[in-house]
Amino acid sequence: MIQQELVEIGRRAKQAARQLAYASTESKDKALLAMAEALLENEQDILRANAADIQAAEEKGMKKSLVNRLRLTEAGISHISQSLKDVAVLRDPVGEGEVWTRPNGLRIQQTRVPLGVVAMIYEARPNVTVDAAALCLKSGNAVILRGGSEALESNKVLARVIADAAAASGLPSGSIQLITETNREWVQQLMRMNDYVDVIIPRGGAGLIQTVVQNATVPVIETGTGMCHAFVDREADYTKAVPIVINAKTQNPGVCNALETLLVDEAIAREFLPLIGGELQKHCVEIKGCPKTCQILPYAQPAEEDDWVSEHLDLVLSVKVVAHLDAALDHIYQYSTKHSEAIITENYSKAQRFLKEVDAAVVYINASTRFTDGGRFGFGAEIGISTQKLHARGPMGLKELTTIKYMVYGDGQTVL
Amino acid sequence: MIQQELVEIGRRAKQAARQLAYASTESKDKALLAMAEALLENEQDILRANAADIQAAEEKGMKKSLVNRLRLTEAGISHISQSLKDVAVLRDPVGEGEVWTRPNGLRIQQTRVPLGVVAMIYEARPNVTVDAAALCLKSGNAVILRGGSEALESNKVLARVIADAAAASGLPSGSIQLITETNREWVQQLMRMNDYVDVIIPRGGAGLIQTVVQNATVPVIETGTGMCHAFVDREADYTKAVPIVINAKTQNPGVCNALETLLVDEAIAREFLPLIGGELQKHCVEIKGCPKTCQILPYAQPAEEDDWVSEHLDLVLSVKVVAHLDAALDHIYQYSTKHSEAIITENYSKAQRFLKEVDAAVVYINASTRFTDGGRFGFGAEIGISTQKLHARGPMGLKELTTIKYMVYGDGQTVL
Repeated sequence: MIQQELVEIGRRAKQAARQLAYASTESKDKALLAMAEALLENEQDILRANAADIQAAEEKGMKKSLVNRLRLTEAGISHISQSLKDVAVLRDPVGEGEVWTRPNGLRIQQTRVPLGVVAMIYEARPNVTVDAAALCLKSGNAVILRGGSEALESNKVLARVIADAAAASGLPSGSIQLITETNREWVQQLMRMNDYVDVIIPRGGAGLIQTVVQNATVPVIETGTGMCHAFVDREADYTKAVPIVINAKTQNPGVCNALETLLVDEAIAREFLPLIGGELQKHCVEIKGCPKTCQILPYAQPAEEDDWVSEHLDLVLSVKVVAHLDAALDHIYQYSTKHSEAIITENYSKAQRFLKEVDAAVVYINASTRFTDGGRFGFGAEIGISTQKLHARGPMGLKELTTIKYMVYGDGQTVL
Repeated sequence: MIQQELVEIGRRAKQAARQLAYASTESKDKALLAMAEALLENEQDILRANAADIQAAEEKGMKKSLVNRLRLTEAGISHISQSLKDVAVLRDPVGEGEVWTRPNGLRIQQTRVPLGVVAMIYEARPNVTVDAAALCLKSGNAVILRGGSEALESNKVLARVIADAAAASGLPSGSIQLITETNREWVQQLMRMNDYVDVIIPRGGAGLIQTVVQNATVPVIETGTGMCHAFVDREADYTKAVPIVINAKTQNPGVCNALETLLVDEAIAREFLPLIGGELQKHCVEIKGCPKTCQILPYAQPAEEDDWVSEHLDLVLSVKVVAHLDAALDHIYQYSTKHSEAIITENYSKAQRFLKEVDAAVVYINASTRFTDGGRFGFGAEIGISTQKLHARGPMGLKELTTIKYMVYGDGQTVL
């Protein structure tokens, strides 16, 4: 049995989605700009609510990096407000498509339409509340938000402010809704509300995502876990390899597209490992090495099986010496979460083999895995990074929040 | 715990998929032609196995229409063989895509790649064994087949013949596999083998599809149930309306794109209902009418709630008089399975509203719902009709059996 309040939320979202589906781009953009203004106008309320969340989190002993993700400042709110304006100028995918005509004169028009109702389950990051709502709204979807409970007070104010602004500008009132109940049973129910929810997008830790994948009956877009590898081939240009490895590992180690395992071609291990090892040490990166790595780099710690399996999400890098490209491909095949994988080489054929044979959302030649991002790909925005193969793969922008509908124009055609 | 034999099947499929992913179109087409030849060469074995299935089905008292779907003839086998040749000439979507360059020189290439391992669960129709295998193979996927148990003997021979031919022509040996165990527990396990199966496509009755949707953890493409409506507006051209309704209802009433409910504008009910009623009677169609319909058509039976909810899949049509377009839209909103919906009207604005406001895979103006089909849409083939919104919607061809991979060409780029 589903909670009556949750059914109500679903019903309102579905009703809103029915109208939002054919809201004009103009009316959606007007709402986004009104939401941007409303955030600035309600800055003090938002900061007050956020201060309460921060205090509670600190009292509970939350990790400093997580507290920082939770914190809002005046500059942060102004940044979030600006991001709404940025979404308003993005091209609306709804209504785009292609058309063809069959021999019998039937004109078939494949047209992008919104998914309907999108449920987002995400970590305690208040900016996601606004970003996700903006992208869903721009693509014509109603959204049901369920953020991490540590951000509840901030989310309540943010969601109220933007939902009210959207409604005041003329969009249906159930377009943006926040679940304020923190009982996890509600999330379990939400992911089985097939009559009301068209897709569920979990964002956050591997545990949350697995819970959703295992229990949801609503279609899921799986995001996130990135056990990313870089293979430095014997024909690599070190002036590319070193900056790429350092960038991919250290520029923001807590994110899914950061490098987790470095694979080094045995033929260059004695030369390249001391070089990269020194640079990694300068950047305070701890090395977990295979036995050969530990032989060459006395300061490396021995890697355990889990170092090849799980994301460090920290200034820690697993390093393994492999016999050649094939061994690198085998290691990646075994341990990749199919997010982002890179090869550093000047050899054309090896680069092509890597592109072809590695099964991942994004495969790089001579570039940092950190580029796997909607903004950096040029999509203008990102609702998450899909690590599944159905519907969307890699960075997801507005288009990935839509589906298609075939509109068929006839003049009396029947089948033979 | 998953059956060891099933894990073995999954492992072999995954291994085959790794190679199939970059098999050339030429090598796949060569295999398809070899499979076509092998079917003809083994015609007698196939017919013998099929005769055993037919006999067992008849002894069990299977419905005649189902026995007919199960039956293979020499002409049928030659038709199936030809369909393999037809798939061989279709354009291979693998490797197609688009490319753009970012301001920093990074070249991003979005490329179609196979999904990997596709599991098909389907009714007792031996031709589906071959058709599904052909489409999966052409799109570079390994396939695990699980057909209705009544077709087991036929499927065993068909799968062996085509799998052997594919392997003999050089494709990996696990490319096509049939599950011969009829215990339903295996299907339950198959749909939770996320480590081995990338997507599961159930085809068949609503019960099977719901079981898969409710229990699968592997991503599902839902196919099939079509509670299709046609709304005859007061401004309809009867010379289009009558043939369309008759065609959509009677040309093949047992399929998902057949018409199930006719909605008639009140303003023309007294004129149009006797007209269409007479034609329906000529085609032996039983009418289940709303009270107003029964008033006008004395031979109509009163409709019950279930007549608006469930597919008849037979020469039975539910008929309801509605006040106007809005009432028709509300009825469709409430009862549609979002498969195929049609309006018959000469009014431009009403036609546009119907296209825009009806949420379904395919929405028609002045044409029969029976056109919802990969072949009739011009896709050359069809693996099923998706009624979900994620990944694929409407008729699914080869492209829908692929996903994308981003291949990124750099020359040392790092993020700022």
